[in-house]
Amino acid sequence: MRVIPATPTDRNHIYDILIRSQLFDKSDADTVDEMFEQAMAKPGPDAYHFIGCWHNDVMLGFACYGREAMTQHTWDLFWVCALPKARGKGVGRALLSFATHQATAAGGRLMVIYTSSTSAYAPAHRLYESQGFACLATVSNYYDDDDDLLIYSKQLV
Amino acid sequence: MRVIPATPTDRNHIYDILIRSQLFDKSDADTVDEMFEQAMAKPGPDAYHFIGCWHNDVMLGFACYGREAMTQHTWDLFWVCALPKARGKGVGRALLSFATHQATAAGGRLMVIYTSSTSAYAPAHRLYESQGFACLATVSNYYDDDDDLLIYSKQLV
Repeated sequence: MRVIPATPTDRNHIYDILIRSQLFDKSDADTVDEMFEQAMAKPGPDAYHFIGCWHNDVMLGFACYGREAMTQHTWDLFWVCALPKARGKGVGRALLSFATHQATAAGGRLMVIYTSSTSAYAPAHRLYESQGFACLATVSNYYDDDDDLLIYSKQLV
Repeated sequence: MRVIPATPTDRNHIYDILIRSQLFDKSDADTVDEMFEQAMAKPGPDAYHFIGCWHNDVMLGFACYGREAMTQHTWDLFWVCALPKARGKGVGRALLSFATHQATAAGGRLMVIYTSSTSAYAPAHRLYESQGFACLATVSNYYDDDDDLLIYSKQLV
């Protein structure tokens, strides 16, 4: 299993992983697809960074992270998602580890993750906590009634 | 004093208010300017909404608000800013009141405001609290070391 930066040909794999995840709907997948298009069109330090986790020529999961606008060296893990069949096998851990190392190497000071409080995301919360992130802020009913925003963060240096 | 939606000719007024506010730097003003350009180019329910507070043909302050992507009827007050000479005269209150009423009329359920914890923003925090917003979440060192993210929110319905 290896994590590598995404290339333009990964676009359909990423879209497919989001749809098959059952955690995200079509409008989320379309949002990620637009971000991917932007990232490939204008690569650079301020662009979104997409990475994929591969095994035997199959992309098992991907993540997207980048700098937070208007902050001093704060990074954001925007998306992390794995195929249902690949869960519990360290895909998320490998992606998160790669992302935090890259952000740290690029001068990152803090990484944040915005996520939903609903039970569907409980495995993601456990992943973040296992990687040293702590949930330090909650905005009640942010996504919807009874669907809070949780903000995880990790000091990188 | 009256609050009205912005028109394309307000672009320079808004830029000028940001620069003269001494709360925001040129890169912030450029960010708002891009948002303004987008809002004017593609108006619509999902666009950024810009409003201005006027007295005697002078724009004293402006605000920008809109829907939060990927939420159910959550709105975000992205920017609110008044000229230094106009502070303490109800400009911020008039803008915030207009924005929350418009968001509520458009089906808004919750409004959030992201802001800095530094003392320069203390008058803004008092404004938000006076308008029924409460600071319910803090992300330590988010903007920079010793510069936290504060998230204010207000239930609209």
